Amino acid sequence: MDFPSKLIENAVEELAKLPGIGRKTALRLVLHLLKEESEESFLLAEALVKMRAEVKHCRECHNISDTEVCSICTNPLRDRSLLCVVSDIRDVIAIENTGQYKGLYHVLGGVISPLEGVGPSDLHIDSLLERLPNSEVKEILLAISPTMEGDTTAFYLTRKLRDNKVRITSIARGVPVGGELEYTDEITLGRSIVERTVYGKV
Amino acid sequence: MDFPSKLIENAVEELAKLPGIGRKTALRLVLHLLKEESEESFLLAEALVKMRAEVKHCRECHNISDTEVCSICTNPLRDRSLLCVVSDIRDVIAIENTGQYKGLYHVLGGVISPLEGVGPSDLHIDSLLERLPNSEVKEILLAISPTMEGDTTAFYLTRKLRDNKVRITSIARGVPVGGELEYTDEITLGRSIVERTVYGKV
Repeated sequence: MDFPSKLIENAVEELAKLPGIGRKTALRLVLHLLKEESEESFLLAEALVKMRAEVKHCRECHNISDTEVCSICTNPLRDRSLLCVVSDIRDVIAIENTGQYKGLYHVLGGVISPLEGVGPSDLHIDSLLERLPNSEVKEILLAISPTMEGDTTAFYLTRKLRDNKVRITSIARGVPVGGELEYTDEITLGRSIVERTVYGKV
Repeated sequence: MDFPSKLIENAVEELAKLPGIGRKTALRLVLHLLKEESEESFLLAEALVKMRAEVKHCRECHNISDTEVCSICTNPLRDRSLLCVVSDIRDVIAIENTGQYKGLYHVLGGVISPLEGVGPSDLHIDSLLERLPNSEVKEILLAISPTMEGDTTAFYLTRKLRDNKVRITSIARGVPVGGELEYTDEITLGRSIVERTVYGKV
């Protein structure tokens, strides 16, 4: 694709580096910005630069934060006996949005994946083991996606954590709310039968 | 959706203003930028700001350009007797990419659309009529999308242009190359029969 302007081409190239955005979509975005007030482009650019330059990772849980220690870790209303281990910042946002969890978090920053060259030392596992002895944590909830890598990570963590006197739990696996039995895969449906709960307990 | 950081939230809000990008996609882009080197974010922001601040519209044809008059209008190799009228900058890029057109352009900046409050005076029609008398243009090729608004605009233009001694042509309508006859809509197929061409002429 040839562009009539080097400036446009440059902006398209930079936008097309983002995941899921090709050159055609990038051009559409650039032409949209050209039609809007120039302030729109400046606000967008400023927000991106400021975000990238100033965002911190919480010293305690490695969640993204505007401060040294994040608003969840410093919140006196959170339950300090419960610690939820997730792989990614997105998982924290997803769990927070349920409104069902009032404990603390620990973000690993990924999952163990030998294929992609990610080992335990690349994740925030050491800092998890370090923060436990001096904490009030009584239960660790592993909320890691049930993929091959996720399960490997969870298995590794349970091995590492068993010396600490904490209860280790996992989020429930089963048929999704609103899901149809006949379209659920056999493994999920099988586990939902093995790990059946007493009616009315939830 | 709650975000753990105001900076993230701000960046997501700004990105989500772009067409076709919702808050979930915006968050994915922001987290991608956070994972990449911070230089990536700065380059993107710089490209956007520079593009918006410095891009000009060609004085002659209203195409986007880095200079007062665009590289197509100043190119001595282009055929100055042929002028292609399009509604949008994207159409110029699409036609340039075919490599089949060597004339000049005139970008209207939209189509006449009473429903959206776009009248002839909102488009670059006056400047088209002004540039014709002092030019070498002998043929005007209307390359406007065959929608209701596009056809209205083309009809308006042919009325306005008939006093100038120029030949007015339109891009051919017909069955797309590689298209199946049975899946072509009746109007297109009908027009392709009425406006049939001599075999081997193209």
